[in-house]
Amino acid sequence: MLIGPNAPISFESKYRASHMAHVYDFYKPDLASEYPVVDGKLSQTCYLMALDSCYRQFCNKYEKIAGKQFSISDAEYFVFHSPYNKLVQKSFARLYYNDFMRNCSYVDDDAKEKLQSFSNLTGEESYQSRDLEKASQQVAKHLYGIKVQPTTLLPKQIGNMYTASLYAALASVLYNKHDSLNGQRIVMFSYGSGLTSTMFSLRLNNGQHPFSLSNIGSVLGVTEKLQSRHETLPEKFVETLKLMEHRYGAKDFETSSDTSLLQPGTFYLTKVDSMYRRFYSQKPAEEIGGGKTKCCNGFANGH
Amino acid sequence: MLIGPNAPISFESKYRASHMAHVYDFYKPDLASEYPVVDGKLSQTCYLMALDSCYRQFCNKYEKIAGKQFSISDAEYFVFHSPYNKLVQKSFARLYYNDFMRNCSYVDDDAKEKLQSFSNLTGEESYQSRDLEKASQQVAKHLYGIKVQPTTLLPKQIGNMYTASLYAALASVLYNKHDSLNGQRIVMFSYGSGLTSTMFSLRLNNGQHPFSLSNIGSVLGVTEKLQSRHETLPEKFVETLKLMEHRYGAKDFETSSDTSLLQPGTFYLTKVDSMYRRFYSQKPAEEIGGGKTKCCNGFANGH
Repeated sequence: MLIGPNAPISFESKYRASHMAHVYDFYKPDLASEYPVVDGKLSQTCYLMALDSCYRQFCNKYEKIAGKQFSISDAEYFVFHSPYNKLVQKSFARLYYNDFMRNCSYVDDDAKEKLQSFSNLTGEESYQSRDLEKASQQVAKHLYGIKVQPTTLLPKQIGNMYTASLYAALASVLYNKHDSLNGQRIVMFSYGSGLTSTMFSLRLNNGQHPFSLSNIGSVLGVTEKLQSRHETLPEKFVETLKLMEHRYGAKDFETSSDTSLLQPGTFYLTKVDSMYRRFYSQKPAEEIGGGKTKCCNGFANGH
Repeated sequence: MLIGPNAPISFESKYRASHMAHVYDFYKPDLASEYPVVDGKLSQTCYLMALDSCYRQFCNKYEKIAGKQFSISDAEYFVFHSPYNKLVQKSFARLYYNDFMRNCSYVDDDAKEKLQSFSNLTGEESYQSRDLEKASQQVAKHLYGIKVQPTTLLPKQIGNMYTASLYAALASVLYNKHDSLNGQRIVMFSYGSGLTSTMFSLRLNNGQHPFSLSNIGSVLGVTEKLQSRHETLPEKFVETLKLMEHRYGAKDFETSSDTSLLQPGTFYLTKVDSMYRRFYSQKPAEEIGGGKTKCCNGFANGH
């Protein structure tokens, strides 16, 4: 992340709102295993409660400072921490439900009618109601297509990236919409189990080359990167996971010497010795002529 | 740590010097064990090399800024990261050896004679030489008694405290010498395996109550705290360690309900359930009358 003046992406820190709680929703207590302990249902409820809390505070701050109500219609895009896309759909619908409860003016009569029967639910009931989930997703569907869909490209294509998922979603909308983001607002929702969460917003402007939105969109090269992925048979994938499990925290092994799937310039583990000491090597960068070498996404002098 | 103006302990940041290196001297690669992997000999050499490097840079900065040579005689106390006292003795002797090599004026003829035969050692040889270790400790012994001994009370009484050891050593000299520290300088050497290390210096002044050196010395209450420790039979100690090993990272157990050895107000683990969730309780604070309660080292309102 580069920080500087006249940024094409600037933080509206004054509206930032956070929520924290002590919960065992998703955690890694068994240090010998690479896998977490997950309470899926609890984690989803925690996520939505955190979203509600952050959104409520965000709206309060906005209203105090801007002197008018905030609603979904005041931002062009909503970017969520994205463990899986279904939760992103539920989350946006939840914001819509919040706006309905707050009597936001954009909520039309049809939506009001569909959500009316849920207006007396307690908070706890509202998190458990499958009917509310369905109804709110239905009424929010059109706006979801406009304000969220463009952010979901990378999270849907790659799967759960944990911490990176929010920024992969931001990269997706920057890539998809860089031509039309000037002057627009993006609301971000960051969530980490345990839990701590923050809602914050960004203001976009075209900026100056090389720090322009169009250049950012172009160097992201999302389509090319997605296309350059290698397809693997499920059996091979499962085998790779087994190997990874077996080697997690292990000692005294050497890794495969086949580096054909690595990008030029990539550092990789070659072995872990009997004292758990780790050894690395680097795949040579590609010669591109003129004494320069192509390395990962950039260029480096070849010495 | 409280930070504020007119501090009785102030940092001389301009002289601060750091040294880092990638080494496997002391590390915790086996996440299922609470014990580290230690290469004792390597760790000691790394420590002394880091000390040399930091001291060299510290002296250079001092000389550039103050316009005169720095030596051991320019600080009243030297406080070291203290895994065990023998290393602290070696470290101070190493600084003395550095001063000898730098022709510092306080090094007398007798010391010069005793160290002369080591003046042509390479760096590596000097770290391995037991004779140098012995000779330098001998010539530095008198100054060690004055400039280091008063810092060793807590580390020697308590044993290895890892990160805390440097600050326990600082607390020791504050406790032992608070009446005479006004205007004096303390040099600190912080070390963490792996490794990263820093040498920095502090200036002391009596300060204003309650932030005065004499009040700090008094509230530290080191003697009382050391005296209030409980003696335990070695068998009981070994048994406790075994229990700790057994429970490290474990689930599904309850702890002893005997809290007689805990200070009033202490939080303690009561159980870890089958999902690794941890539960705590707090030992009641002592009533001291007037609706107030005594809690740990301080006082809190009893509600």
